[in-house]
Amino acid sequence: MTGGGNIFGEVFRVATWGESHGTAVGVVVDGCPAGIHLTREHIQKELDRRKPGASDITSARRESDEVEILSGVFRGRTLGTPISMMVRNRDVDSTPYEKFREIPRPGQADLTYEMKYGIRDYRGGGRASGRETVARVAAGAIAKRILSVHSIEILGHVIEIGGIHARELSFDEIRKNAERNAVRCADLEAAAEMESRIKEVKAAGDSVGGIVEVIALNVPPGLGEPVFDKLDADIAKAMMSIGAVKAVEIGAGFKSVRMLGSEMNDEFFITEGKVRTKTNNAGGILGGISTGEPIICRIAVKPTPSISKQQRSINMRSMEEVSIKIDGRHDPCICPRIVPVAEAMLAIVITDHLLRSKISRL
Amino acid sequence: MTGGGNIFGEVFRVATWGESHGTAVGVVVDGCPAGIHLTREHIQKELDRRKPGASDITSARRESDEVEILSGVFRGRTLGTPISMMVRNRDVDSTPYEKFREIPRPGQADLTYEMKYGIRDYRGGGRASGRETVARVAAGAIAKRILSVHSIEILGHVIEIGGIHARELSFDEIRKNAERNAVRCADLEAAAEMESRIKEVKAAGDSVGGIVEVIALNVPPGLGEPVFDKLDADIAKAMMSIGAVKAVEIGAGFKSVRMLGSEMNDEFFITEGKVRTKTNNAGGILGGISTGEPIICRIAVKPTPSISKQQRSINMRSMEEVSIKIDGRHDPCICPRIVPVAEAMLAIVITDHLLRSKISRL
Amino acid sequence: MTGGGNIFGEVFRVATWGESHGTAVGVVVDGCPAGIHLTREHIQKELDRRKPGASDITSARRESDEVEILSGVFRGRTLGTPISMMVRNRDVDSTPYEKFREIPRPGQADLTYEMKYGIRDYRGGGRASGRETVARVAAGAIAKRILSVHSIEILGHVIEIGGIHARELSFDEIRKNAERNAVRCADLEAAAEMESRIKEVKAAGDSVGGIVEVIALNVPPGLGEPVFDKLDADIAKAMMSIGAVKAVEIGAGFKSVRMLGSEMNDEFFITEGKVRTKTNNAGGILGGISTGEPIICRIAVKPTPSISKQQRSINMRSMEEVSIKIDGRHDPCICPRIVPVAEAMLAIVITDHLLRSKISRL
Amino acid sequence: MTGGGNIFGEVFRVATWGESHGTAVGVVVDGCPAGIHLTREHIQKELDRRKPGASDITSARRESDEVEILSGVFRGRTLGTPISMMVRNRDVDSTPYEKFREIPRPGQADLTYEMKYGIRDYRGGGRASGRETVARVAAGAIAKRILSVHSIEILGHVIEIGGIHARELSFDEIRKNAERNAVRCADLEAAAEMESRIKEVKAAGDSVGGIVEVIALNVPPGLGEPVFDKLDADIAKAMMSIGAVKAVEIGAGFKSVRMLGSEMNDEFFITEGKVRTKTNNAGGILGGISTGEPIICRIAVKPTPSISKQQRSINMRSMEEVSIKIDGRHDPCICPRIVPVAEAMLAIVITDHLLRSKISRL
Repeated sequence: MTGGGNIFGEVFRVATWGESHGTAVGVVVDGCPAGIHLTREHIQKELDRRKPGASDITSARRESDEVEILSGVFRGRTLGTPISMMVRNRDVDSTPYEKFREIPRPGQADLTYEMKYGIRDYRGGGRASGRETVARVAAGAIAKRILSVHSIEILGHVIEIGGIHARELSFDEIRKNAERNAVRCADLEAAAEMESRIKEVKAAGDSVGGIVEVIALNVPPGLGEPVFDKLDADIAKAMMSIGAVKAVEIGAGFKSVRMLGSEMNDEFFITEGKVRTKTNNAGGILGGISTGEPIICRIAVKPTPSISKQQRSINMRSMEEVSIKIDGRHDPCICPRIVPVAEAMLAIVITDHLLRSKISRL
Repeated sequence: MTGGGNIFGEVFRVATWGESHGTAVGVVVDGCPAGIHLTREHIQKELDRRKPGASDITSARRESDEVEILSGVFRGRTLGTPISMMVRNRDVDSTPYEKFREIPRPGQADLTYEMKYGIRDYRGGGRASGRETVARVAAGAIAKRILSVHSIEILGHVIEIGGIHARELSFDEIRKNAERNAVRCADLEAAAEMESRIKEVKAAGDSVGGIVEVIALNVPPGLGEPVFDKLDADIAKAMMSIGAVKAVEIGAGFKSVRMLGSEMNDEFFITEGKVRTKTNNAGGILGGISTGEPIICRIAVKPTPSISKQQRSINMRSMEEVSIKIDGRHDPCICPRIVPVAEAMLAIVITDHLLRSKISRL
Repeated sequence: MTGGGNIFGEVFRVATWGESHGTAVGVVVDGCPAGIHLTREHIQKELDRRKPGASDITSARRESDEVEILSGVFRGRTLGTPISMMVRNRDVDSTPYEKFREIPRPGQADLTYEMKYGIRDYRGGGRASGRETVARVAAGAIAKRILSVHSIEILGHVIEIGGIHARELSFDEIRKNAERNAVRCADLEAAAEMESRIKEVKAAGDSVGGIVEVIALNVPPGLGEPVFDKLDADIAKAMMSIGAVKAVEIGAGFKSVRMLGSEMNDEFFITEGKVRTKTNNAGGILGGISTGEPIICRIAVKPTPSISKQQRSINMRSMEEVSIKIDGRHDPCICPRIVPVAEAMLAIVITDHLLRSKISRL
Repeated sequence: MTGGGNIFGEVFRVATWGESHGTAVGVVVDGCPAGIHLTREHIQKELDRRKPGASDITSARRESDEVEILSGVFRGRTLGTPISMMVRNRDVDSTPYEKFREIPRPGQADLTYEMKYGIRDYRGGGRASGRETVARVAAGAIAKRILSVHSIEILGHVIEIGGIHARELSFDEIRKNAERNAVRCADLEAAAEMESRIKEVKAAGDSVGGIVEVIALNVPPGLGEPVFDKLDADIAKAMMSIGAVKAVEIGAGFKSVRMLGSEMNDEFFITEGKVRTKTNNAGGILGGISTGEPIICRIAVKPTPSISKQQRSINMRSMEEVSIKIDGRHDPCICPRIVPVAEAMLAIVITDHLLRSKISRL
């Protein structure tokens, strides 16, 4: 499927739309099985996790983000028909963007959209704004409902910000602590340090990046397709499609480069009648297919490009070099807000492959 | 598009097939534009780069890999119809695999294929074998022909093996030196060290991983689609779909995590009437769309799972724990042979988006 | 692409959603080129042609059908990003449908949806209602805008209703007269007869079918892809996907069965430097690719299944046979209202192939 | 999925390739479930039904058509991986086509391919030749294997040729008699007349068309997706994609146009605990979803365009009008040989929807 690149998934298909300062943003999910219990609250709960304005380390934009389910659900159950959801854009002030109409902001998609289309909605970043992730999170909330029927759980947390690392954590600690602080780091001491670091950087008019980890627990073995549609390949695409993500790793990832084969290979053993591995360097995926072990994925999130320091750019019309400073409401570190987005994308990929797996045997 | 996961690309579509010890491996390319000059030699040249047996650091399997073009090319020009290519499997000895019929090799896809399908061709890894990359390289050779019409160049080289790093290199050095040694590292001193390291590890019956970098030069700005089909998202999928790849990064990648926004942002300037950036931390892609700067991608390649050390596994039929040792012909380090494969995948993704870009404006 | 079957087109992708008595119906168009002049009025004008209630031969349901464009258009031009459009459902009375909750209406999708999904929105036919064509017509209006840039024109008219045939008409007559009467027949005498026939049938509590013809003028040669995605194959799918359509023919269609090869073949000649054919039995398509001659397609529309006569059915819960009578507001003949829908589908297919044709040569 | 139009199906994906006088023709089937019993003979048997040269009413081209299975099958069972099949082209004589290099044959795809691609393999019709149906029949043979596991049966027969109609026949008669004569008409008296008619037309250097009916028995209710991917919509596309087919109808088809709603609607009743319909005007499909009744589809096949009568054409290079006569080996009526092709396409569509149906409920 081609189109304009705004549709994701093969069986569980997610078509998103909307510009940051347009009328609304939304999503149509086609291919959701019938009979799933689904209410507005299931969606709203996840959207609330994504909302800014919850703390002083996120953007001051107030997005009430009230989702409306427009189709596909009847008396609390999915119909098997497309589920359309919409969130109106409110608290939109486009004035600060007027000056960037002809001046692309460094590290943003302004220049490339202009070069691709010859036209762009420059207000609030238009289609390239992080605002489009509202749609991903809404679709991901449906995916999580489907996964919950199969007892599959998705966890997300921040493990590094601005050089500060969380210590190794158990799944229980992550589940318990990640949502208890503004940075979504389950190591509460590190979390406090990260928060200070972000405030410091913000005060300097700058921004900082970090690493987010997402995990899928209780995924049955056998999900993922050979060769191209490997489970890890689809996860990599899903994650890299999130703005600000510059790298993706599965299991041992870049660390595997410095391991010997005898260290990297996860040896098999049997427990409670099931084949398990002692270690999980593979991150739950072998040959592109899930093993039954936890699926582990980490993503590198670059520092937010919108900073209030002076930067060099150009005027696209006059073709002159200029200097700009971006004011307005920005997240000095986008990592905490990327957590629910990355969770949503992981949930969508696993749901898609869960449904696809039904057709690999008669 | 769904199917069984063996088709890649939206417009330039690559459908691969074949098991390692089956009759043949091959590929059908649907969506190649008409009128491209293409001969058997263009394909064979790339396949020869992938072949093992060229040095004592690669597998001893002798794959003559003579490609046959079966359709889609008429008197040296592409017809616009599907191009079917096939390479017969020869020098196949399936005996060493008999003992793994019921015993999955750690770090391989044996267990997951069995769990997914309830049946597998266990000879030589079947569909999950690195042998399937013959088809990728053949398709990539066609993609490179199309790119060459647009003066787009693809480079690939090894930058790290077993803890030994190549120094920073210019594109010219890479172009000149990467193919001049068995490890495909353009820093010739590092290359010699890497080669020793691989031999050492091989002697110990073990294996080692590394990092491969692929680069696309002269890519026009404007390639890539918003939101999901971002150029970097499709590159991430393409790379992660290669067996043994555990991580992908674009531009500064994981390094961006430790940078400030003011360091990471590539500032714009104008030279020769074109908008350029001084640095290229973005790796040539902003908002999922090419900027015109070089596209830079690095992949983490795990150590080859086939090692001749004793490993713990299980017997899938008797459900007993066992100990195995894998003999046979294996690459102690797969990095050098992954270079042409990663180049092929990058060429395919860029070709696909080059063709897609034609439809973003009327 | 798989999903739930609610997405159409390869490059110009149309994703529709909505149940008849749900909150709204709508569509997301992904893959519309940037820079097309498009306003709400372009869409509304086509929706108004589809609306019932315009005469006493259509359903009495009053659908105001005010379309809202939610994204993808900025200051009257398309952005190249997804265009989301929505029409709220109003004047909805679900009470008459309560009695069909467990009793499927003959000739309708009630039984099959129930069998497929185990759940359905029985109010107003749910997703299977003709109401979903609102979304098709809205998307088709965008397609028509793109086609108009290429001077391609779409015409639609009714050529048969209840045994009454229109005489052969020139394109000029169709263009001038089809919209001038309630049945959309360009032969005004036949139109009057058809109208009487429909009223007669309606009075008897019955319904009647007919034939709709759609035509595309000025289509450039070369649209359509070999083998499966032939232009006529995609038109056939598009037309047969419209509820109530039971047959599709291109050019001479079923008449070709009774012709000799020497009669059927359209001989070539040259005029004004162009290759033309004297006759057009092919209906403008040879080998699945447009010839440059007018594209001619006819569809058989069955009589509306909702009739107010007594019919035999069953109760799905009690599994007893019952007798039902469908009251409420129905079109005794759906043909006139299918005209803009069939035009929309033809416009969508041709737009899709127009965009695809850009990539068949470099 | 876009590509060049040579891939069909969503889940059971069929990618065909090959030119008539090229090296070979073939197909890759991706998405076939694992564990299906499949041998070379299953494929060969269907290819033999398609072969010409079996009687004096078909082309004299001798196509031995020995199929080779190259992948995806292991010890008589499908692996779940792509099944690649190939048939070498033999008995190929390209000389008669030299004179059509610049002169398009009326009713053929010569002109349109040239206009689309600017290049074509003119030998034997190239990619547009009926020879490509070898690949369809081979893929259809696999589909039939899958259907047989579900006791679904596909029947095909000729019901009209050159004005001669078969009488109405029971499924038993069709099953018993269709393959017993050269025209594949199950009404043996009509068959004899048809055969005479074809010989007569052939003697006059002309050709004749007809109607083929294909039927699927024992299809479970619930196959087909809402709105666009309706079962009848996909059947329509599949059939219209066969060269020479100019119309498709389902159930009552064009006859429904002259029926009243009260005649057309199939009333429900209950027998043996199942909901059935007394009549089957719907042709086994309501709202795009199978009802459980037999699926009935008829296609109009135009007279073979290759005739040995003098015809007017043009020279594409000199742009002059010319007169041509096509000698060589042609079928005076292609209907009998289209029967296995139409069966194959019906089998492919139903298999695709059978697999898709698994994901409509959790």
